[in-house]
Amino acid sequence: MSEDTKDLKALEWTGSSLRFIDQTALPLRLNYIETKDYREVIHAIKSLTIRGAPALGIAAGYTAVLAAQEGIESRVKDFVLWMHEALIEIEKARPTARNLFFAIERMREILTRHNRSDAAQIKQEFLEEANRLYHEDADLCRRIGEFGAELIKDGDSVITHCNTGMLVTAGIGTALGVICTAIDRGKNIHVYADETRPLLQGARLTTWECMNRGIPVTLICNGAAAYILRMGKANCAIVGADRIAANGDVANKIGTYSLAVNCKAHNVPFYVAAPYSTFDLSIDSGDKIPIEERNTAEVTKPCGVTIAPEGVSVFNPAFDLTPAELVTAFITDAGIFRPPYGKWGDLKTV
Amino acid sequence: MSEDTKDLKALEWTGSSLRFIDQTALPLRLNYIETKDYREVIHAIKSLTIRGAPALGIAAGYTAVLAAQEGIESRVKDFVLWMHEALIEIEKARPTARNLFFAIERMREILTRHNRSDAAQIKQEFLEEANRLYHEDADLCRRIGEFGAELIKDGDSVITHCNTGMLVTAGIGTALGVICTAIDRGKNIHVYADETRPLLQGARLTTWECMNRGIPVTLICNGAAAYILRMGKANCAIVGADRIAANGDVANKIGTYSLAVNCKAHNVPFYVAAPYSTFDLSIDSGDKIPIEERNTAEVTKPCGVTIAPEGVSVFNPAFDLTPAELVTAFITDAGIFRPPYGKWGDLKTV
Repeated sequence: MSEDTKDLKALEWTGSSLRFIDQTALPLRLNYIETKDYREVIHAIKSLTIRGAPALGIAAGYTAVLAAQEGIESRVKDFVLWMHEALIEIEKARPTARNLFFAIERMREILTRHNRSDAAQIKQEFLEEANRLYHEDADLCRRIGEFGAELIKDGDSVITHCNTGMLVTAGIGTALGVICTAIDRGKNIHVYADETRPLLQGARLTTWECMNRGIPVTLICNGAAAYILRMGKANCAIVGADRIAANGDVANKIGTYSLAVNCKAHNVPFYVAAPYSTFDLSIDSGDKIPIEERNTAEVTKPCGVTIAPEGVSVFNPAFDLTPAELVTAFITDAGIFRPPYGKWGDLKTV
Repeated sequence: MSEDTKDLKALEWTGSSLRFIDQTALPLRLNYIETKDYREVIHAIKSLTIRGAPALGIAAGYTAVLAAQEGIESRVKDFVLWMHEALIEIEKARPTARNLFFAIERMREILTRHNRSDAAQIKQEFLEEANRLYHEDADLCRRIGEFGAELIKDGDSVITHCNTGMLVTAGIGTALGVICTAIDRGKNIHVYADETRPLLQGARLTTWECMNRGIPVTLICNGAAAYILRMGKANCAIVGADRIAANGDVANKIGTYSLAVNCKAHNVPFYVAAPYSTFDLSIDSGDKIPIEERNTAEVTKPCGVTIAPEGVSVFNPAFDLTPAELVTAFITDAGIFRPPYGKWGDLKTV
């Protein structure tokens, strides 16, 4: 990793504010945003300035802390009500990623244990819980990386989709963390990074992370992944997840399902790397996961440049569903899970 | 079709020059380029200002006429040699589309029937042949449309890839012409237009053509096509082709193969619409079709805006290969062909 990027932190609590990398400005500019305003963090989540399931969980925790801080400083009449409303606001920022709800559920548990006179105590427990989520995440990434690295062979080429690295976690990443760990163990690994339209997280962020870490990476358009598989140039695909249902169905960035179908057609392993906090065992199948539809301008105005006719109709789902039967294995912090899915053994769940 | 666009001609011979729509400026601006310089047409082909297999064939014919005109006006010493060199230059503009070579082969046949003193006669025969290719193309499109319209049912939603309409033909188009003909016959058809990275011909051109013609169209990112198929929202896919081998393997815009694999996985028909001039029966399988790799900036700088880190490695094939077994049927000017492929019956070939 280059000197100026090796100690990057995607998100960081400063003591009184949240500081985070503006992911929309990369790779052209490495900008940080620092704020004490919890609404600004919610806006950052909605605009994908902060993105990626694990990062959404971490950000949600600290956003609750910021809301508590504001509630105390502005001496709101009913602190518990204020916090319940803020937690709902945070939850509503984006609908698909499990980790966001997971973090808010933890905060809500704290809240329900106290009454309105405990504001300072509640804020303190929020902060401890947010810090715990943060530090836990780095550890989850490390464990995912160690389990997953065993699945990748020396000399493999791996297709990635979207971005799943340090930018979306407090550690080395999920899917990209697996690749990093394999490389750290002396394996030669080459990455084919799907550009990932519409918001190009693969082209903008995964290539940037790979180049920073010295990982050989080739950028491709999503449409080229199948062609690469047909040519026998890729040995597996590893993606992250936004939510995983009890039966193993996976919600992840739009385009994931197409990649999974193509991996199956070419008999190439398709792996999903995610921490326990991405699993939502309250949902028995993926069909019940809400799929966010986003602004049409993401498709019609890439990088702010209009490319489609004014007024054209657009279908812009941010995620899609990959059925469990297309997943060769899940790489989790509790180990590798293979079909049949449904019994998650040692996977810590809430 | 709106008043100002219903009489558009993608390419037109003016009597002494070639006039064509600048496809790179659409949909923001409808610009025409008119030139007598054959090298400028070659440049337009290389830069995709003129694109699409049938249009490349038509343009190649008139480019030969322009080269002949220049050879005569500049009184080149050896006209036949001049023309042979020009034909090679035109052929080298792009490597994949069959129609370009088909047109040049016809010109070369004319050339070999004459000696160097016949310059005016050669030019005249070039022009007649180019006009024949032009008018024939409109007729081929009409016949493809009529045969293909039978395959689409009232109420169908159809996925398209890249652009296959009037912009790439002298008529109503190939795949898009099929949809137009079905609509003209009173069927309600809805189009899902794949945006088609890297050059976004679907987002820029197919949506524009559909909206001009009053065809209901929804723009999607390529990655969303599989999700739409899974939701049961699409009844078939129809694509064009750049070259079809004797065994039915298809070279077409990158991303076509991924779409074909996904259609197969969802048991949805995948149709290829193309005139006889796209078939290359001298090639027994698709593996022998050269696949053009284009400039990395098409991927890293969409619309001129840099989105990827400086110096990133890129794999940017302009086309991919779809094996014959994924093609439900070919829609040609000689009728519908279904598997097993290889005997092309009434298909006119050279």
